[in-house]
Amino acid sequence: MNEAGGKNTRNDTLVDKALDYAERNKDRFLDELKEFLRIPSVGTIPNNETDTIAAANWLADSMTSAGLENVQLFTTSGMPLVYGDWLRAGADKPTIIIYGHYDVQPADPIDEWNTPPYEPTIVDQYLHCRGAADDKGQLFIHVKSIESYLKGAGSLPVNIKCLIEGEEEAGGEGIEEFIVENRSFMAADAIAISDSAMISKEQPAIVSGIRGICYAYLDVFGPMRDLHSGSLGGVVDNPINALGHIISKLKNEDGLILIPGFYDKVRDLNQAERAAQAVNPINEREILAVSGAPQIWGETDYPIAERLGTRPTLDVHGVIGGFTGEGTKTIIPAHVHAKISMRLVPDQEAREIYELFEEYIHQIAPPSVRVELSLAHNSEPSLLNAGGKAAIAAAAAYEQVFGRKPLFIREGGSIPVVAVFQEHLGIDSVMMGFGLPDDRIHAPNERFFLPNFYRGISTAIYFFDAFGQGN
Amino acid sequence: MNEAGGKNTRNDTLVDKALDYAERNKDRFLDELKEFLRIPSVGTIPNNETDTIAAANWLADSMTSAGLENVQLFTTSGMPLVYGDWLRAGADKPTIIIYGHYDVQPADPIDEWNTPPYEPTIVDQYLHCRGAADDKGQLFIHVKSIESYLKGAGSLPVNIKCLIEGEEEAGGEGIEEFIVENRSFMAADAIAISDSAMISKEQPAIVSGIRGICYAYLDVFGPMRDLHSGSLGGVVDNPINALGHIISKLKNEDGLILIPGFYDKVRDLNQAERAAQAVNPINEREILAVSGAPQIWGETDYPIAERLGTRPTLDVHGVIGGFTGEGTKTIIPAHVHAKISMRLVPDQEAREIYELFEEYIHQIAPPSVRVELSLAHNSEPSLLNAGGKAAIAAAAAYEQVFGRKPLFIREGGSIPVVAVFQEHLGIDSVMMGFGLPDDRIHAPNERFFLPNFYRGISTAIYFFDAFGQGN
Repeated sequence: MNEAGGKNTRNDTLVDKALDYAERNKDRFLDELKEFLRIPSVGTIPNNETDTIAAANWLADSMTSAGLENVQLFTTSGMPLVYGDWLRAGADKPTIIIYGHYDVQPADPIDEWNTPPYEPTIVDQYLHCRGAADDKGQLFIHVKSIESYLKGAGSLPVNIKCLIEGEEEAGGEGIEEFIVENRSFMAADAIAISDSAMISKEQPAIVSGIRGICYAYLDVFGPMRDLHSGSLGGVVDNPINALGHIISKLKNEDGLILIPGFYDKVRDLNQAERAAQAVNPINEREILAVSGAPQIWGETDYPIAERLGTRPTLDVHGVIGGFTGEGTKTIIPAHVHAKISMRLVPDQEAREIYELFEEYIHQIAPPSVRVELSLAHNSEPSLLNAGGKAAIAAAAAYEQVFGRKPLFIREGGSIPVVAVFQEHLGIDSVMMGFGLPDDRIHAPNERFFLPNFYRGISTAIYFFDAFGQGN
Repeated sequence: MNEAGGKNTRNDTLVDKALDYAERNKDRFLDELKEFLRIPSVGTIPNNETDTIAAANWLADSMTSAGLENVQLFTTSGMPLVYGDWLRAGADKPTIIIYGHYDVQPADPIDEWNTPPYEPTIVDQYLHCRGAADDKGQLFIHVKSIESYLKGAGSLPVNIKCLIEGEEEAGGEGIEEFIVENRSFMAADAIAISDSAMISKEQPAIVSGIRGICYAYLDVFGPMRDLHSGSLGGVVDNPINALGHIISKLKNEDGLILIPGFYDKVRDLNQAERAAQAVNPINEREILAVSGAPQIWGETDYPIAERLGTRPTLDVHGVIGGFTGEGTKTIIPAHVHAKISMRLVPDQEAREIYELFEEYIHQIAPPSVRVELSLAHNSEPSLLNAGGKAAIAAAAAYEQVFGRKPLFIREGGSIPVVAVFQEHLGIDSVMMGFGLPDDRIHAPNERFFLPNFYRGISTAIYFFDAFGQGN
């Protein structure tokens, strides 16, 4: 050991040993990632459980090999959670949760792939495969950084709990149920998530804010039962027509939400935040390609990146009422149901927004119908405290590896589990991604920039060290 | 025969013989009606076919006993049509179709009935039973008037075709399909329908107009697939929100339809028509009781009876889109579907209204979504020609029996088959009802004013005679 030399071989600290181990094992790490990627663990297709569970088992074995302890699959209402921990850093050291997801998006449309979707293929410096960036490649960074510490240095500078889910793409609730039931078991000081993108190959980024949500059910009732619209059309109001008016008064056609007081607590971006958002490379062309929408839309006073990351929204997610079968029926329906959510930004408070929404709904609903409103769920918007310990540690780690301070950018693409962790464990997540904006996640030819896989492992190694030193 | 005397016994004409027969057999007629009413032929409950078909068979037997010929059940896509004719009046005599329906509304809520819903019970002068007024009691008037001619006088002054359906309450299409396929078989000069109400016990009424309809499907498309509303909320328009704006622009909250040109051809009521509508006793209390709506609604510039009978409407009958399962899902949905109809009044033309609607929809739909509109069906509004032969004959018959000329009133409650007859056979219906406004049709304690059963038979006898004399 002591006779080793060369620029990447330093032995006098845990970090150096871990970096050295990572460097020496990089080819095997990649081979293992390829193995992981070959399991088509599509989470959104019914009856694909076999592959998804195979990926969970593969990951559990890999985590055991990495030196994690208590590795096990926790069953949930959906796909299992893969858990493993290493809690020997000492009670004086902080504990960090590593979150990721082993399920992937479907490969459709398959014929648009240039390489087989589940056969990892390196093209230039990119590893092409479904799940390469989202999120197998990124979560595997953490498994390998942990292995590098435990196998390369025999120890970690922090306590670690890994919790990797298999329902992220399907919006499953297994992880939330698990966290709610295991608050003390999952107690920690911070959460690290690598499931987002940098600004560019050179410029790392930490997601500095996610939107909260206030989700409500709105029921509009008219007559006590469906009436014949010939008999009473013109003298009895129609709850679907009334709902149309209500919806039209919630948000205007330019995207401005009309609920009085709704924007009162929306914090203006300061110049630095605005500048940070401005470098977010998301653009019109990309959004049209991803969405297939006829055109870009929204509050034209705000650039796209600000609309996504820093502005609240209001969307009707579903509506059903009256006669919805094939063909025609002429009724004044008794009832229509709508699901409506508002995405919230700092410093809006979900509970207060719900109250404003409720008051406004009752104000605009005509007396010719009866409305019932109920809250489905609230979660608060959150900003990473860029001055907090985890953020400082992550920023330092990025700078060490990439030679540049990361930008803190707010994104519209929330990672649902962040709010879950915040709500139930009361702790913040550091969203330190290693993807790139053109990784084509959720689309054909998904890819992961391979140098970022290795740099990611190095960054995680520095991050654990920096975070551990703070205590 | 010749020795008979008394005020109701005249033997020198067909009419007198028929009236005499009806008078002599009135108790048996009532007993038979009770038998008919005891069959719970509810047409709107699945798996109730046995009772409904039993009622059809009972009616067919009764029509045969009455002297009708070619009595048979025509199968349809739904419940059978009961057909019978008597075509021996001669080619120089007109042919009249008698329409009615043997199906009834459900009895629910059963515990609000004061007498058993399917056990005909006379309370004061009313026969209480489900179907007593709507429509078994009223259609049976015609069967018994025909019997009175054929059995009492051996002949009818007109040719008759009875076509009695079993799907009126369920909105079944069996009768329309049958008429479309049997136009020449069903050729006739007029249609008589007794399925409506008089103004009061003393004041008969003929329904002088029904509304037409233009029924369309509207599909609004946003992104090519459901998007995560966190990722893209704020930059991609939401088709349900857009539909809300579209609906709000179709009709304002006071019931005024906003489609340019929509009202251009709505014929103003003349003083006589307005006066006729004004005597329609429908009122706010009654509408609230029937509908259970929180309050009366609509164009306050028009009295309720005018709103119902003489003003066009626009109603959304059904809507479905996005996530409609239990719980929450945060999507910008790809699509929403709505079913919309406009009830039309003279002189609106359904085709033209559809074109105005289509043009307006494309004008108000924002370019951030794509709309598809398609026509489901059109039918024209129609006014009875109060100066036409059938109307004159019916009015004369009413006057003969009730001692008062009937009022011609336009009602919102269209009888769907009227438009079908008009569209496919090109002939008008005379809606000569014998019900009363407080018959509680479709509600608990439905009843039929028994004197109107007998007067109805007499009126039908006079009507056939008057209509036959015209040729």
